[in-house]
Amino acid sequence: EEAPPSPDAAQDPFAGDPPRHPGMRVNSLKPFNAEPPAELLTESFLTPNELFFTRNHLPVPAVDPRSYRLRVEGPGGRALSLSLPELRSRFPKHEVTATLQCAGNRRAEMSRVRPVKGLPWDIGAISTARWGGARLRDVLLHAGFGERRDGEWHVCFEGLDEDVGGAPYGASIPYGRAVSPDADVLLAYEMNGEELPRDHGFPVRVVVPGVVGARSVKWLRRVAVSPAESPSHWQQNDYKGFCPSVDWDTVDYRTAPAIQELPVQSAITQPRPGAAVPPGELAVKGYAWSGGGRRVVRVDVSLDGGRTWRAAELAGERPAPGRAWAWVLWELRAPVAAGAELEIVCKAVDASYNVQPDTVGPIWNLRGVLSNAWHRVRVTVAR
Amino acid sequence: EEAPPSPDAAQDPFAGDPPRHPGMRVNSLKPFNAEPPAELLTESFLTPNELFFTRNHLPVPAVDPRSYRLRVEGPGGRALSLSLPELRSRFPKHEVTATLQCAGNRRAEMSRVRPVKGLPWDIGAISTARWGGARLRDVLLHAGFGERRDGEWHVCFEGLDEDVGGAPYGASIPYGRAVSPDADVLLAYEMNGEELPRDHGFPVRVVVPGVVGARSVKWLRRVAVSPAESPSHWQQNDYKGFCPSVDWDTVDYRTAPAIQELPVQSAITQPRPGAAVPPGELAVKGYAWSGGGRRVVRVDVSLDGGRTWRAAELAGERPAPGRAWAWVLWELRAPVAAGAELEIVCKAVDASYNVQPDTVGPIWNLRGVLSNAWHRVRVTVAR
Ligand SMILES: [Mo]
Ligand SMILES: [Mo]
Repeated sequence: EEAPPSPDAAQDPFAGDPPRHPGMRVNSLKPFNAEPPAELLTESFLTPNELFFTRNHLPVPAVDPRSYRLRVEGPGGRALSLSLPELRSRFPKHEVTATLQCAGNRRAEMSRVRPVKGLPWDIGAISTARWGGARLRDVLLHAGFGERRDGEWHVCFEGLDEDVGGAPYGASIPYGRAVSPDADVLLAYEMNGEELPRDHGFPVRVVVPGVVGARSVKWLRRVAVSPAESPSHWQQNDYKGFCPSVDWDTVDYRTAPAIQELPVQSAITQPRPGAAVPPGELAVKGYAWSGGGRRVVRVDVSLDGGRTWRAAELAGERPAPGRAWAWVLWELRAPVAAGAELEIVCKAVDASYNVQPDTVGPIWNLRGVLSNAWHRVRVTVAR
Repeated sequence: EEAPPSPDAAQDPFAGDPPRHPGMRVNSLKPFNAEPPAELLTESFLTPNELFFTRNHLPVPAVDPRSYRLRVEGPGGRALSLSLPELRSRFPKHEVTATLQCAGNRRAEMSRVRPVKGLPWDIGAISTARWGGARLRDVLLHAGFGERRDGEWHVCFEGLDEDVGGAPYGASIPYGRAVSPDADVLLAYEMNGEELPRDHGFPVRVVVPGVVGARSVKWLRRVAVSPAESPSHWQQNDYKGFCPSVDWDTVDYRTAPAIQELPVQSAITQPRPGAAVPPGELAVKGYAWSGGGRRVVRVDVSLDGGRTWRAAELAGERPAPGRAWAWVLWELRAPVAAGAELEIVCKAVDASYNVQPDTVGPIWNLRGVLSNAWHRVRVTVAR
């Protein structure tokens, strides 16, 4: 995994990218963006590292862990330059089970309403891991930043991945979340008990539980406390939601807030669209998750397009209130009659009793983000 | 407002209730439950006290402020008994502008899908005030309770209002919210700069911003830290959401969490359903709000039943992140053609990009709570 960039890297900035699992469904090769097949996604509560969805904006940087340094800086604190052994030894290792979801998960459904700009993710741009690392809070307090700061403050992250002009990937989160003992924000160096794979940010990435994946900056090189959000393209002019009537001629990115917490979400992973299922008992399976640590409290499933509903069985951890960072996997078993045409639908309810919208059209937006309408799968019951 | 109970109180426990504004739309006289007319609701950002929606579960108690005592108790703290002057003088007065909404707001729309059990609130079981009082946090810390407690803890409230068997109204909130400096939970003795009116909890009520009104216990007599939620009927066996298929034969209240934070909500207050509006420019007005301090970031309005949308102008305070406790009032102006039939629809988006569901049926529940589907108003444009 840590081979040096190949000789043709000068021609192809992606030539040094790592090898990947052949079972991944690739949405873009350069940069690499891929999701696990839906039928594998909910086979286990923790997603195996090699099946965890990969969302890269740029080439994967080749990082030498011996020379790696993480810079921490900003007004009100002292500047730090931490080596990997320092990050591991100076701060207690904290572990969090957290789901990450791309803002573009389920974009393909939005594109079917009207074309949007973005990668055609199916339902697999979401995965769950056990992350281990230093708490961002501990690092900030060690650098002398306080528990509370007056006024508006943000914590900006920069990656070692750079575009052709040398600009790094970047993003930010509000200061309050970064320093909160309850928000569990990590500078992670472990993923499911292993060192971070290169595709997931080796040697150090941010993990912001309950927040859109785009803020969990990989290959982290810099943490900066700032009175402004990250100036990065991805914070300022991407990853925001708009009214369906806003198009590329009228969009003004300054009018919408950067996505942080994501809305409640669910999807059906089994059966697959168009399947012919045997008559008898049908097992419907899927995942559900919500942003901000809001636990999923119920998943309703319909076999008749949304006319009647039953609550599914939920499996998952029993999280602390407000810290439900991981998805729940759910299942509904129901008898189905030979020859029937079923429209299976799911919708989740979170701890704030927020629900998913019925249809995609009214949440359509030009970038195809935040696609969380009811998930619908049509199947036929064989005779 | 502080007249003693009238002599026939023995016959009628509601005989001592205070006088009310004649313009209120009354849903139940005993106990008194009433909402302001929709056209007055959004006339001002702060709802005048006499128009603030009133949701009483029991007769209004007659409280002598000279003998009033607030008890505070529970394991891990010392018991307090606070007089009204002590509550006012020992703790700094903290002011918060917060919207309260009844869980049953907009229940009438749910009843039109299928009958539900509950008061037929229209869109007015929501109002906003500037509350003044002691922080619950300050009182708990003064009593020796800590900033954090291991395990599950709740803060239970009891009112001086009692049913015929002597059981008080009660409710609880999680300990973390009660003690958080960011949650702004008040023991309020002022409402819009005046002492609390009797209908709103004189002399002291809880105000839990961002949370269903049912937890903001009025006529507060007791605050108790407890390892369990309030044993009250209204915490255990009411104010919970269920799948539409759950009926009174199958409901198990233990399976659903007590409503705390409410989901994103909005409604149209102008024009009114069935109105004939003049041709030319139509002004559509309404409110939007979300639970948990999540700011409303956008309100979309449609004049064609949801086929096309435009973003409304929002007016309101600029709150601190995560502490958007007050509603936003919104307005959309659009030209309308003589003779047109309009189906006006609104839907709001909050800071977590949660949205309202399209239709009422799939969120229907036997108690008719959490009714937050798109609000729809049909009008005719005059010729
Ligand atoms: Mo993303
Ligand atoms: Mo309520």
